[in-house]
Amino acid sequence: MVDHLLGIQGLSKSEIYRYLDTAHSFVEVSERDIKKVPTLRGKTIVNIFFEPSTRTLASFDIAGKRLSADTINVSIGSSSVKKGETLLDTVRTLESMKPDVLVMRHSESGAPHFAARCLSNTSVVNAGDGQHEHPTQALLDLLTMRQHFKGRGIEGLKIGYVGDVRHSRVARSSVWAHLALGNEVRLIGPKTLVPEDFARGTFGPGMVQVFDQLEPGLEGLDVVVALRMQLERQEEHFVPNLDEYSREYCISERLLSKVAPNSIVIHPGPMNRGTEITSDVADGPRSLIRQQVTNGVAVRMAVLYLLARSVQSLEEVAHG
Amino acid sequence: MVDHLLGIQGLSKSEIYRYLDTAHSFVEVSERDIKKVPTLRGKTIVNIFFEPSTRTLASFDIAGKRLSADTINVSIGSSSVKKGETLLDTVRTLESMKPDVLVMRHSESGAPHFAARCLSNTSVVNAGDGQHEHPTQALLDLLTMRQHFKGRGIEGLKIGYVGDVRHSRVARSSVWAHLALGNEVRLIGPKTLVPEDFARGTFGPGMVQVFDQLEPGLEGLDVVVALRMQLERQEEHFVPNLDEYSREYCISERLLSKVAPNSIVIHPGPMNRGTEITSDVADGPRSLIRQQVTNGVAVRMAVLYLLARSVQSLEEVAHG
Amino acid sequence: MVDHLLGIQGLSKSEIYRYLDTAHSFVEVSERDIKKVPTLRGKTIVNIFFEPSTRTLASFDIAGKRLSADTINVSIGSSSVKKGETLLDTVRTLESMKPDVLVMRHSESGAPHFAARCLSNTSVVNAGDGQHEHPTQALLDLLTMRQHFKGRGIEGLKIGYVGDVRHSRVARSSVWAHLALGNEVRLIGPKTLVPEDFARGTFGPGMVQVFDQLEPGLEGLDVVVALRMQLERQEEHFVPNLDEYSREYCISERLLSKVAPNSIVIHPGPMNRGTEITSDVADGPRSLIRQQVTNGVAVRMAVLYLLARSVQSLEEVAHG
Repeated sequence: MVDHLLGIQGLSKSEIYRYLDTAHSFVEVSERDIKKVPTLRGKTIVNIFFEPSTRTLASFDIAGKRLSADTINVSIGSSSVKKGETLLDTVRTLESMKPDVLVMRHSESGAPHFAARCLSNTSVVNAGDGQHEHPTQALLDLLTMRQHFKGRGIEGLKIGYVGDVRHSRVARSSVWAHLALGNEVRLIGPKTLVPEDFARGTFGPGMVQVFDQLEPGLEGLDVVVALRMQLERQEEHFVPNLDEYSREYCISERLLSKVAPNSIVIHPGPMNRGTEITSDVADGPRSLIRQQVTNGVAVRMAVLYLLARSVQSLEEVAHG
Repeated sequence: MVDHLLGIQGLSKSEIYRYLDTAHSFVEVSERDIKKVPTLRGKTIVNIFFEPSTRTLASFDIAGKRLSADTINVSIGSSSVKKGETLLDTVRTLESMKPDVLVMRHSESGAPHFAARCLSNTSVVNAGDGQHEHPTQALLDLLTMRQHFKGRGIEGLKIGYVGDVRHSRVARSSVWAHLALGNEVRLIGPKTLVPEDFARGTFGPGMVQVFDQLEPGLEGLDVVVALRMQLERQEEHFVPNLDEYSREYCISERLLSKVAPNSIVIHPGPMNRGTEITSDVADGPRSLIRQQVTNGVAVRMAVLYLLARSVQSLEEVAHG
Repeated sequence: MVDHLLGIQGLSKSEIYRYLDTAHSFVEVSERDIKKVPTLRGKTIVNIFFEPSTRTLASFDIAGKRLSADTINVSIGSSSVKKGETLLDTVRTLESMKPDVLVMRHSESGAPHFAARCLSNTSVVNAGDGQHEHPTQALLDLLTMRQHFKGRGIEGLKIGYVGDVRHSRVARSSVWAHLALGNEVRLIGPKTLVPEDFARGTFGPGMVQVFDQLEPGLEGLDVVVALRMQLERQEEHFVPNLDEYSREYCISERLLSKVAPNSIVIHPGPMNRGTEITSDVADGPRSLIRQQVTNGVAVRMAVLYLLARSVQSLEEVAHG
């Protein structure tokens, strides 16, 4: 029986801390002169991406290599999918090559969960599925907050997600995490991108507050999460136009200094500077955006380690 | 002088067994906790694919890495070919970077043979050339049969290839192997896809039987090989339409139970479920389809090992 | 503080020799049975290519792997660039994953220089930027000449660049190198591709001679560098048509035997045989074209080594 990381929904607080504690111990590996540990030598990690990706794929690839695993990157789009093979057959075929972990990004929500149900000997990591979950991004955001709020910890925080919450798998994964940790979560954006009933329908009644105005939404926040506005949202009529959107919802230093002066700001990237975030915030002292990327490698090392080593870990427990 | 693996045609029975024996010894490497041997450390394997591929490329890549070789994947299509460089110059350029093995897939029949003639220090492996050969697929099929028919061996078997034999490099390589082993081979499919004179013209008179009806073709077979029906064959008027094709030629459990009850079924993948094979066969007890993929890694490890180590092996013989 | 290799312009003679001496010591690694040294174990090299490339990418990838570094290849085009991310954010994001070296190819001149200014902990190598520089190609050409002119050295040579000099980043980098070494440089081609004022404007008055006729240009040369004629130049009206171009400027054995009988010929590749170079030259005894490719791996090993080890090298100097 193998473990998977398919989403944050359903993870307990202690499971979340287990990932964060492990990631914490991997942070310094990437600071070393020789950035490599032999932990996963002889393990095979297949990164199968059905959607293009630069940063997440590179991050998983680097994470695997720094653990001394063999990493295989499979980009689907031009090959088997065109040939009409089912997702079931694609993942079973890959499993038959005996990888230890399958890291999957897919445009369909639930695809990694389906893969996990089909496979019996390979761990599946969800690297982003449709508009559903992106659990390693949520974990790296938490690790970043934990480093910043060293003294007080990451429970009891006020967090706000700003922008296109409706389509954001990052926001969805993260809100589940914050609910598990008992944090106060706000979703902030135009009604088309943060419908009132969406929050209730997704996370349950009373769990999450919705704001359709930026200033009251940001007020008193500890953490502001700027979400990427995808340019195609304008064509899809979710926002009238991007200029107008940014006048109402772009996160600026002027506003943060006024209503959330001690807040930190993070962004899952890639950023549209001037649309959802101003450059003075992105490059300013409250921005932990680059630290997020650094932590992304550590979190993915932790996830790969915990999944690929799960059998031995149990043995270690047994003999420990 | 280096060795190549360009095709099965012309290989002797003992050469075939040499690949199978070596592959057999590599099967268990992929079952280990640490799936890696240092055999090809410091060797460079270049996988140059002029056609898109998921499974074959991943299989060679994993095989190389499990032998501790450095693997370089070069996908051609968007770069040098567009720039007008000849195949000769492309492979000579790569050879000048001192790889030990060049694994090549190409849409033109004979391209790897041409490459092998041009190169003097690099072994070439044919990973599929046009409608000509795909030798590692034939070898992995044989390894799979050998594991199944453990007691009696793989000589004296009755094998049938069903479907689009005309365009199948897998079938062509495999038939050469079975003729070398003295097996009885049948080609089964509509006359457009298995012309009577094609079998004679390719393999010689009297070597291979042709059937244009499924039931008599399957009768008494030990091994049924379902071939992939490419959807474009309908547009090319090789089959009237795929529904009609599958009514006549789809391999079903009902039929196999009746006419070849002890047969095993294999498929080179990717499968069109419901077109050339029913799901009850593909996922049933006589299917060895997933085992084929597992064996693919072992066969490719064997091929890379035998070619990249050829010089030393001779030395070992000399000093042994 | 990290070092970069952004161009040849501005390098001193001793800096050029430092690269060549180091590359010289790496040449034999690729001749070994085990083509690998542990020098950069635990280092991360990211090859980020904004333009398609086969040979240069493969060369850097092989170079990194033969030094035991982890190499990550990021092809941009389909992912983040489409998502509207700035180059600044793309390279900063990658830097946050803690690579030691970023090898960059970009269609815009100056992109690697911009990246180098943005980054503080990652070395940048220019693998070709627009029509500006391609320093590792210039260095591998020099290494090739140095091997050939073993006795007399590479100073005081007469070198000619033939063809599309205007658009050639290879020619530009190389001319800077030859000017640093005190070599005589000629640019040879039709006036549209080698404008008189271009040479003056780029390299300064009196530094470089321009010839619009092949025969007098080649006369007495020690080294002839054939440049690739891009087919689109005809559409852009730089040459009337390629047949006419090749009648005037194609480098042939007949002509070389007559006017530069002891010359060697190199070409950065990929070649258009029959357009800028005849096959009797390309495949003949004066051609060092394949040796260039072999040297390319050694030069890139040297560059990666010198940049990724720069801190330790200084320490070595301090403690040495």
